[in-house]
Amino acid sequence: MAVYTDVLDDDLAAFVAEYDIGDVLAFKGIAEGVENSNFLLRTERGSYILTLYEKRVRADDLPFFLGLMEHLAAKGFACPVPVKGRDGVALRRLSGRPAAIVTFLEGLWPRRIQPVHCAGVGGALARLHRAGADFPMRRANNLSLAGWRPLLEAAAPRAHEVRPGLAEELAAELDRLEAGWPRDLPEGVIHADLFPDNVFFRDNAVSGVIDFYFACTDAFAYDVAICLNAWCFEADGAFNVTKARLLLTRYHAARPLSQVEYAALPMLARGSALRFLLTRLYDWLNHPAGAFVKPKDPLEYLHKLRFHQGVRDVGAYGLG
Amino acid sequence: MAVYTDVLDDDLAAFVAEYDIGDVLAFKGIAEGVENSNFLLRTERGSYILTLYEKRVRADDLPFFLGLMEHLAAKGFACPVPVKGRDGVALRRLSGRPAAIVTFLEGLWPRRIQPVHCAGVGGALARLHRAGADFPMRRANNLSLAGWRPLLEAAAPRAHEVRPGLAEELAAELDRLEAGWPRDLPEGVIHADLFPDNVFFRDNAVSGVIDFYFACTDAFAYDVAICLNAWCFEADGAFNVTKARLLLTRYHAARPLSQVEYAALPMLARGSALRFLLTRLYDWLNHPAGAFVKPKDPLEYLHKLRFHQGVRDVGAYGLG
Repeated sequence: MAVYTDVLDDDLAAFVAEYDIGDVLAFKGIAEGVENSNFLLRTERGSYILTLYEKRVRADDLPFFLGLMEHLAAKGFACPVPVKGRDGVALRRLSGRPAAIVTFLEGLWPRRIQPVHCAGVGGALARLHRAGADFPMRRANNLSLAGWRPLLEAAAPRAHEVRPGLAEELAAELDRLEAGWPRDLPEGVIHADLFPDNVFFRDNAVSGVIDFYFACTDAFAYDVAICLNAWCFEADGAFNVTKARLLLTRYHAARPLSQVEYAALPMLARGSALRFLLTRLYDWLNHPAGAFVKPKDPLEYLHKLRFHQGVRDVGAYGLG
Repeated sequence: MAVYTDVLDDDLAAFVAEYDIGDVLAFKGIAEGVENSNFLLRTERGSYILTLYEKRVRADDLPFFLGLMEHLAAKGFACPVPVKGRDGVALRRLSGRPAAIVTFLEGLWPRRIQPVHCAGVGGALARLHRAGADFPMRRANNLSLAGWRPLLEAAAPRAHEVRPGLAEELAAELDRLEAGWPRDLPEGVIHADLFPDNVFFRDNAVSGVIDFYFACTDAFAYDVAICLNAWCFEADGAFNVTKARLLLTRYHAARPLSQVEYAALPMLARGSALRFLLTRLYDWLNHPAGAFVKPKDPLEYLHKLRFHQGVRDVGAYGLG
């Protein structure tokens, strides 16, 4: 839940006047999104989301993110579309922040994940990968293998506060991932953060995907592994093989996974688990007292990591 | 900013199915409102606000609040209207909380108060008082004179953490208010919390008033005094006589204030300042670490209290 920057009346009026979207009828901060400030903006023309990009998003990356959404939407993929001002520019400034208006996407993100949602997200992820395949810009994934050791080193001195021995366990896992990380997998634009709150559904079908602010160029199968972790574990920690099978088969139906990609999935899932564990651990140890955003439990991902450490092949994910 | 309770998919679907408002198209937590959880609910029929009433609101009071909104709207006063289910009932339960759907009100609350806003709020407050005059229910103001001593006693032991000598200064002021509090003023339904974020404007005119969850039966002039404090001080602490004059004269034009009410205003303004000072002080001393809501500065209202202590008559408010 997040509104970090409020917008003064005159600033909003001057900003919106740069667009051809009519007068503002309503403007409300939205309690979603952890990284940026998001507002529902209703004008005479329709509903939009106005985002102010806060300091965790690098301004240099914004043309990639906005360009990607425009590219995907042009390919028929349902995602927010950046709205351009009369001068043709989508990325502007407001209240001292980079800011953009995107179209409002209907649908609800699922609070309680059912198998049908996992089927839906599998298909949507494959369509996203196909639609983004010819997007011409590149952005390195700075939260992949090379980024994990600095995160671990930053968190290690106090990791024992979260769990005794945690730093040592993660260091050993990182050694193994560095030795065995899959290379030369098919790659392209990945979402890299496709958690349930970023996927909207209507009538059990995906109506759209939001929040492309971790998108980057990386192995498609790594994105699949992120979704296995984000969608297929139950609240009690159990891995739901039915959900995983639906996610993987519906992905495969829209973008076939090669044998090499299938074989890489357990290692990619371990890496994905470590990635979210490390960023959550860092946030847990470093969130300011009185922060608006409650940090997420890092140990949820230690549990997921250990599950994938025990996986020998994709049979454990319901395939084969 | 507040979403304290999230709503599961099935619970929302079952809840909305009790109404004749079509299927849900979008559902987003709103980062406004400190007391309750508020969601933008868009359905095939239109836009609504869904509120889950959290523990600071007494369930017994909800029929008063919802009945008042319905009464005011029927009189033509622009405020959210409770939407009834097919069974004719507006107050239901959702996710373990009392809950209601109200209509969505267009407009923006002003972030930077201009004189035109003070004129607008003066007129709107008077119209609210007139429209509510024949509302048949009563609700005592438990945050008026009788409620302040318990609040002060709860905050006094640690008040020095906020400012040395604060408890003693407030105790002396409360003695004076108890001795001289105006009685027998014209009374009826008052809003009791008409701060800028509860008043929406379009084109510099009031488009609606929201958040009736402090509304109660008390002196109309006390509501005026609350607005003097909430709307007429600048960020640097200066009292803006022009704004006060506009607020009071526009109020008077729609509901004439008697000489007795005018004479009572300085004392009522001191009481109103003490009321918000005490609740802010209590919240400041008692908010949990890591709370979503950042407590407001109590000392802003100490400054306002001292200003009104120096006021001899309404000439200081720009009149006479």
